Amino acid sequence: MERQADGTFAGHTSPAYANMVGPFGGISAAQAMNAVLLHPDRLGEPVSLTINFAAALEPGPFLVAARAARTNRSTQHWIIEVLQGGQTVLTGTAFTALRRDTWSVDEEPMPVCPAPDLVPLGQGPIPMEWVKRYEMRPMEGAMPQVWDGSGESSLTRLWVRDNPARALDFASLTALCDVFFPRVFVRRATLVPIGTVTMTIYFHADLAQLQASGSGYLLGQVRAQAFRNGYFDHTAQLWSEAGVLLATTQQLVYYKN
Amino acid sequence: MERQADGTFAGHTSPAYANMVGPFGGISAAQAMNAVLLHPDRLGEPVSLTINFAAALEPGPFLVAARAARTNRSTQHWIIEVLQGGQTVLTGTAFTALRRDTWSVDEEPMPVCPAPDLVPLGQGPIPMEWVKRYEMRPMEGAMPQVWDGSGESSLTRLWVRDNPARALDFASLTALCDVFFPRVFVRRATLVPIGTVTMTIYFHADLAQLQASGSGYLLGQVRAQAFRNGYFDHTAQLWSEAGVLLATTQQLVYYKN
Repeated sequence: MERQADGTFAGHTSPAYANMVGPFGGISAAQAMNAVLLHPDRLGEPVSLTINFAAALEPGPFLVAARAARTNRSTQHWIIEVLQGGQTVLTGTAFTALRRDTWSVDEEPMPVCPAPDLVPLGQGPIPMEWVKRYEMRPMEGAMPQVWDGSGESSLTRLWVRDNPARALDFASLTALCDVFFPRVFVRRATLVPIGTVTMTIYFHADLAQLQASGSGYLLGQVRAQAFRNGYFDHTAQLWSEAGVLLATTQQLVYYKN
Repeated sequence: MERQADGTFAGHTSPAYANMVGPFGGISAAQAMNAVLLHPDRLGEPVSLTINFAAALEPGPFLVAARAARTNRSTQHWIIEVLQGGQTVLTGTAFTALRRDTWSVDEEPMPVCPAPDLVPLGQGPIPMEWVKRYEMRPMEGAMPQVWDGSGESSLTRLWVRDNPARALDFASLTALCDVFFPRVFVRRATLVPIGTVTMTIYFHADLAQLQASGSGYLLGQVRAQAFRNGYFDHTAQLWSEAGVLLATTQQLVYYKN
C-alpha cells in the first residue's frame, strides 16, 4: 500500500485472495489493519481491531483512511474507513498500545490435539482461490463432504498456516482470524448464502510472541453461540504451536434461509 | 438526548451512574447506541455494536455524532464518535438491519441455575454509585470479600436487572452488557487499577424478544480467556429468564501490575 498526499493509503485487491464475491474478508481486514501499522503517527502495537464489512469490494484499487482519533500517553484509538469510488466499503476501529510486562495467565486452555504432521489436509474441492493461500488441517468439524442437513455442532478445530509458510505478523494474524468456514455450513450440513458483517480481534500476543511463532502452525478453535433470524455469531481462539494464546476473535455473519 | 442543528445529539453525564473515574462505561455505551436509535435515518434494529473508550468522560455535557457510512437495501453501517470540549472520548461502530425469520438455534446452552428469588443479593459495600442502579444476584464468582490473592477462575454467573426494574430495550441491554465486575478482581482476588478499552455486543434478539423479557431478570455469564501484559479480555452471554440468548458480548480491559 502507498501513502497518498492526503494521508490515505492506496491499495488494490489481489486475485490470489478472491472469494465467491469480492476478496476474502480476512485479507481486506489485514489491509485495513496495515494502514494503521504503516501510519507514521502510530503509537505501540495493535491490541484490538474491529472491521465491519459494509459492501463487497470490487476487484481493483481502494483507499484506506486511518485517523488517530485520540492519542494518550501510551495508547491510541483509530477510526478506519476503506473507500472505493468514493463509497464506504469497510469501516473499523483499532486500538494500539505500548505494552508492559505484568502478571499474566491464559485461562482458556489449549485443546489437546495431535501434532500438525499427524493431521491430513482438509478435503476439497473448495473453489475459492483464497483457500489455496492457507494450509488447513481440520481435526474436528471439517467442511461437510455431504450436504444432508445432518450437522449437530458448529465446533471446528484445525491446524492452519499461510501457504506458502511465512513468518507471522499482525497483518497475517488478522487474516488468519477469518479463515474459519461459515459455522452455519458446519452446524447444518447445508449450503446457504452467507456474508461476514463484522469481526473483532483481541491480540493477546505482542510482536515478539508473534515472531516466536515463526512460520509454524496455529491451532484454531471456533464455535457459534447463536443462529437467529438471519445472523449468527462465532467466537474463536488461535494458539501458537507452543501453546501461547495469540488472539481471540469473534464475528457476526449474515445468512439466508 | 437532543438533536442539534448539525445532526449531532447533545447529552450529559448523570451522577446516578458515576463510576470511580467518570461514568459507568455501560451507560456511555448506551448513550452512544441511543444516538443511532434516535437517528431519523436509521434503518432496522441494532445487530452489533462496538464501543471504544478513548478517555474518561468528565461530568457534564457531551456531543454524539452518529453517521450512516453505508446504507444498503436492508442493512446500515454506522460510525459513532462522542466528543467533549472538541476532544474524542468514545469511538464506535454499529450495524443495524431489518431482520427476517429464518432457521434459528441457540448453540450456547443456558446454565442450569436456581431461580432469581432463591439467590441472595450480592454483598457490599461497593462504593460506586452506578452499582446501585442494578440488582445483582451472583451465584458463582461473586466479587471477592477478602483480597488475599486466592482466586482460581474468572467465571461469574449472576441474575441481574435494572434497579428499579424497567422494561428491557436496546439501550438498557447495552448497559447491562457492561455490568460484570473486572475479571482480574475475581481471578486474582486482588484489586488493581483497571479500565475497559473496547466492548463489542452482538444482539441476537430483536425488539419483540427484548419486550417479551419485560422487566424480568437476565442471566449473565462471563469469563476471561487471557490476561496478558496489561490487557485481559472477557466473553459473556446474557439470557432472558425464559432462556432466550439475548446478546453475547466481549470486552478488552486494561489492568496494571
